[in-house]
Parts: sequence; C-alpha cells; structure tokens
Amino acid sequence: MKLIIGNKNYSTWSLRGWLVLRGFDIDFEEVEMALFSTEFYDEIAKYSGAAKVPVLVDGDISVWDSLAICEYVNDTYLDGKGWPSEPAQKAKARAIAAEMHSGFGALRNEMPMNIRGRRKVSPSRDCEKDIARIDDIWSSQMKEFSEKGGWLFGDFSIADVMYAPVVLRFITYGVTLSDDAQRYATHVIQNAALQQWIEESQQDTSVIPEDEAGVDVA
Amino acid sequence: MKLIIGNKNYSTWSLRGWLVLRGFDIDFEEVEMALFSTEFYDEIAKYSGAAKVPVLVDGDISVWDSLAICEYVNDTYLDGKGWPSEPAQKAKARAIAAEMHSGFGALRNEMPMNIRGRRKVSPSRDCEKDIARIDDIWSSQMKEFSEKGGWLFGDFSIADVMYAPVVLRFITYGVTLSDDAQRYATHVIQNAALQQWIEESQQDTSVIPEDEAGVDVA
Ligand SMILES: N[C@@H](CCC(=O)N[C@@H](CS)C(=O)NCC(=O)O)C(=O)O
Ligand SMILES: N[C@@H](CCC(=O)N[C@@H](CS)C(=O)NCC(=O)O)C(=O)O
Repeated sequence: MKLIIGNKNYSTWSLRGWLVLRGFDIDFEEVEMALFSTEFYDEIAKYSGAAKVPVLVDGDISVWDSLAICEYVNDTYLDGKGWPSEPAQKAKARAIAAEMHSGFGALRNEMPMNIRGRRKVSPSRDCEKDIARIDDIWSSQMKEFSEKGGWLFGDFSIADVMYAPVVLRFITYGVTLSDDAQRYATHVIQNAALQQWIEESQQDTSVIPEDEAGVDVA
Repeated sequence: MKLIIGNKNYSTWSLRGWLVLRGFDIDFEEVEMALFSTEFYDEIAKYSGAAKVPVLVDGDISVWDSLAICEYVNDTYLDGKGWPSEPAQKAKARAIAAEMHSGFGALRNEMPMNIRGRRKVSPSRDCEKDIARIDDIWSSQMKEFSEKGGWLFGDFSIADVMYAPVVLRFITYGVTLSDDAQRYATHVIQNAALQQWIEESQQDTSVIPEDEAGVDVA
C-alpha cells in the first residue's frame, strides 16, 4: 500500500491521510511529491482525475480524498475502530469530521498550514468565527472525554485525524484558545506520530508563496 | 425521526439530507425553516453548535452535516446499501462523494442553487474547471454503469445524493455537458424523489439575494 502526499510543511490534506495510517500503526510506503510540480501532476494523473493529494493506492484500488481514505482504512484495516463504537458517538464523530471536511474556508485561506513558520495575521470576522467554532467543539468534547484518553472521543479516532492540521495552524499563528480546547491541542501535539510528521517537515525546504501568510514573529 | 431543512429553492445541503431519506424510502418528518431567520437559529441551536442545516434528529441523536447524515442513514437504516457493495466501488463512491463535500468552491459561489431561476453567468476559469471535473466523473461512471441502472454506480447510492444539487445548478445556468454526462443529468432529473423536491420548491417564494446570481434568461 502506498500513500502519495505533498510537501510536509504545507499539505494539510496529506497529513490527514498519513496520520490515519501512522496513528493506527498501519504499514505503508510513502511517496512525497512537490505540490504543483510537473512530476506531481504526472504521478497523480495515474491514480486520480481529481489531481490532488493525498491518494492512497492499495493494489488496484485508488482512493483520492482524505476523508474517503479515512473511511476506507476504517473499513479495510481497522474493522470499524476508526470511529467510536457507540452509535450516537459515532454519528457525532462523523458530523464533526464532515463539518471540518466541508467547512472552515476562512480559516483555511487566512491561516494556511506552515509548520516551520511563526506568523501574525489579522483574522477576518469569518475566520474568528471558525476559530470559535473549533474551540467550542474541542472544549465540549474535552469536558466529556479528557479523563478518558485525551482525544475528542477518548481514544484516538478519525475525528482527531481531521483536526490535527488545525492544531498546527493554531501554533503557527499563535491562536489563543480556551483552557479546555488548549488541553486538547497540547494532547494532540504530544502524539508520537504527529511529532514524526513535524520532524520530517523540517526537511521540507520548499517555499509555496501562497501559503506564506502573515508577518514573521521573532 | 425528523429532518430540519432550509428553503427548498436554495438549500443544496438540505436537499442532500432529504434525498438520502426520500430516495431510499425511509420515513421521516420534515421541518422546513427559512434560512437566516431568528426562528431558524433558535431551532437549530437546540441540535447543533454548527448552526447549519440539514440536521437529522433521531431520538437522542442529532447529526448536523449532510455527508455525516448519509453515513448515519447508511449504517442505521440501510444496512450498508447506501454505498456500492463491492469494496473497490465503495471506495471510489466515497472518494467521489467526499471530493464533492470538500471541493468545488468556485461552482458553489458562482452558480448557487436557485431551482426556479433560469440565469446566465460568466464562469471564472476555476468554475469551468469544476464543471469539467464533474463532467469527467459523470461521463466516466456512465461509460461503466449507464446500462446497469443509470446511476453513478448502477443503483442509486449516496454518490448520487451528493451530486443531485449540481444537476439542478446546471439546469439553472444552462451548462452544456458531454453526451455521457448529460445522459446522467437526465436520469437524475427524472427521479421521482427529486421531482417531488422540485415541485415543493415551487411553493418556496423566499428570495435570498446572495443566491440570485446572473442575469435572467427569458
Ligand atoms: N478533497 C481533497 C482535497 C485535497 C487537496 O486540495 N490537496 C491539495 C494539497 S493540500 C492539492 O493536491 N493541490 C494540488 C492542486 O490543487 O493542483 C482531500 O480531502 O484529499
Ligand atoms: N457541512 C454542512 C454545511 C451546511 C450548510 O452550509 N448549510 C447552509 C444552508 S444550505 C446553512 O445552514 N447556512 C446557515 C448559516 O450559515 O447561517 C453540511 O454538509 O450539511
């Protein structure tokens, strides 16, 4: 099984595909490509008309969207353990994950993932609303689950995978969170798989100008 | 079980939640609310911090995102029949659905759903790319499946639910498709459940100015 991903410093969607595999200790081969390069488009075209990463290639099967990769991995390798087992919690975890997948456009635009950067931006009203909504999700889950494992639903799940890139955005742009939400962010950042991604992202020396938002903070 | 939805003329995400239930003949009660009204926000706040429709309320469980609603309905009421049964096809259907859920921003902005309207707009390059990608998905699925039922994967599935609003956008803005893609659009529009939504949308006389794009075509 191989996972095609983009630049580790910048590619949030790639991080999701990678983290669902690495976080659940599933073996895979990793193929890192420079986003927007010719070789990137050539390689991706073999597997996906969407022309985006991540793409998971498992034998004859190609899955080209990060949330679909999570569901595929859950079905095929996790026997359903990618989501909480209790049906009401599973429904909630799916809603939280799908809300992230389809929303938070202002946050995505104004605070692009840039792991090595420490930046200051002036968020718009919409971006502030996005941050408040995420704080609300994290803190209400922590009130319920922080004693039970520290993840959004106690144990590590796909819901955490979907929000991990946001934790890194918040560090880059110095976003202040409520205590409960910060507790969650701290828990996420200490995870060994995520630490591995962060370390490996230091070797990524590419610069994508569109993702270099804000002014440098010493 | 009740489904809270917005204005039938405009609300694409609501149509998805509704169509997965109605298209699979599942009984539910429908609560239509005027988007952005005070009563809308009051009602929605009872079930979801995301403050958006659709919301599916099934006893104690609230599911507040259209794709999560599809997955919940699939798990709870369809015994998995919401997706193709063959694993490779299921993975592909999920990728197609999740690609729609997270993408096509230009199309969404420039061609808002407005069922009663017949409009002309000048699409941007990005919007044209979105249309070309959708044409590509529909036509390649039709080459494989049109003899086997006319839906993206032969039988009606969640992938079709996710693209039904796009069929209505294309009619409003007179978008020209390849023959295979048009064959799919024609199949979708003839569906009894979708016809019911369209008829009921005629009773929706609300006007949402932001969703009134383009110039009227006689
Ligand atoms: N819905 C996709 C979105 C993936 C996506 O937008 N990937 C970006 C990189 S983070 C990409 O490949 N961009 C290349 C391009 O747009 O040409 C997913 O969840 O995987
Ligand atoms: N991710 C959500 C998005 C839903 C959404 O954006 N709904 C719109 C109506 S079509 C809404 O409720 N807007 C009200 C608001 O933003 O205040 C889903 O898939 O259900």
